[in-house]
Amino acid sequence: MTRILGVDPGLTRCGVGVIDLAAGRRVTLVSVDVYRSAPTDDLAFRVGSIGARIETLIQELKPDAIALERVFADVNVRSVMGTAQISGVVLMLAHKYGLPVALHTPTEVKAAVTGSGRADKAQVGNMVARILGLAEVPKPADAADSLAIAICHAWRGAGASVGTGQSLTAAQAAWQQAERAAARKREG
Amino acid sequence: MTRILGVDPGLTRCGVGVIDLAAGRRVTLVSVDVYRSAPTDDLAFRVGSIGARIETLIQELKPDAIALERVFADVNVRSVMGTAQISGVVLMLAHKYGLPVALHTPTEVKAAVTGSGRADKAQVGNMVARILGLAEVPKPADAADSLAIAICHAWRGAGASVGTGQSLTAAQAAWQQAERAAARKREG
Repeated sequence: MTRILGVDPGLTRCGVGVIDLAAGRRVTLVSVDVYRSAPTDDLAFRVGSIGARIETLIQELKPDAIALERVFADVNVRSVMGTAQISGVVLMLAHKYGLPVALHTPTEVKAAVTGSGRADKAQVGNMVARILGLAEVPKPADAADSLAIAICHAWRGAGASVGTGQSLTAAQAAWQQAERAAARKREG
Repeated sequence: MTRILGVDPGLTRCGVGVIDLAAGRRVTLVSVDVYRSAPTDDLAFRVGSIGARIETLIQELKPDAIALERVFADVNVRSVMGTAQISGVVLMLAHKYGLPVALHTPTEVKAAVTGSGRADKAQVGNMVARILGLAEVPKPADAADSLAIAICHAWRGAGASVGTGQSLTAAQAAWQQAERAAARKREG
């Protein structure tokens, strides 16, 4: 049995879903929540309080791996900064607790859960509820999304996508490549 | 006397400079370093190891405030993600240790140190060395930049720019406004 924490990172709403993966790709719900912070609050308080709640969740539910939605900078240049900041906090916590962490793109998550990389929010929510045997679709969308990320991670093969850099998803490889190119540019 | 930690956030090179501010705007160097991570390493390891070093620095040198360079998403869409992730880690650590943190834009930093918001790297480095009475310009540029951020913070008035959201710089106000607009859009 593998316990996976899925995170839909965000500063205003951060979805956190925990599932257990058993033999035969069977997944069950452990917990789901959305951590919020007010846009009127101090930025450090917003990042810090969400980070503290994620850390408590890790300590209490002891996941074996973390799956994080990979955010693209070109979607919404403004709101992506807060999302990347929360991602940084999750990456730091993964390192601190020695947990493997994998990044999955929104397209990978939708495809894994619904069979189509272009599924809409409602389809994703409905499939998450069906897969986990829930009577209702988890609300808000960030909650359902965090579970979809965890399910995606479970089904794409924890052995393949969880790793320490040896086994990268296409998105991770592209990310590393971009990072290396940026590094070369700065060095040169 | 106020001790300020300036951070030039980055995933490949993260500049960390600590200065003391005394009466009469006098600033002195306490410490300066650049924490590096290899683009070939696992992302969580990169973020986590730099975060751990910054946390150790905070524990050892006990700054009274943190000054962080505010990064704009439109400068370099790719490398800005890693920068924002490190910023998130710094914001979380500021919250964890109860330290006020302020964000300063590159233009504010250059203007505070050289008198011109359009100064180049060499001018910033030279002025940092002159202001702190150093025989040589700190290298690489990330080291000098972190000290420039700390000096900017010291001279813009710690009372004015350090805060908990009541006293925002123009950049912070713009950020909050964008965050609120994004939040409204998501709520609506």
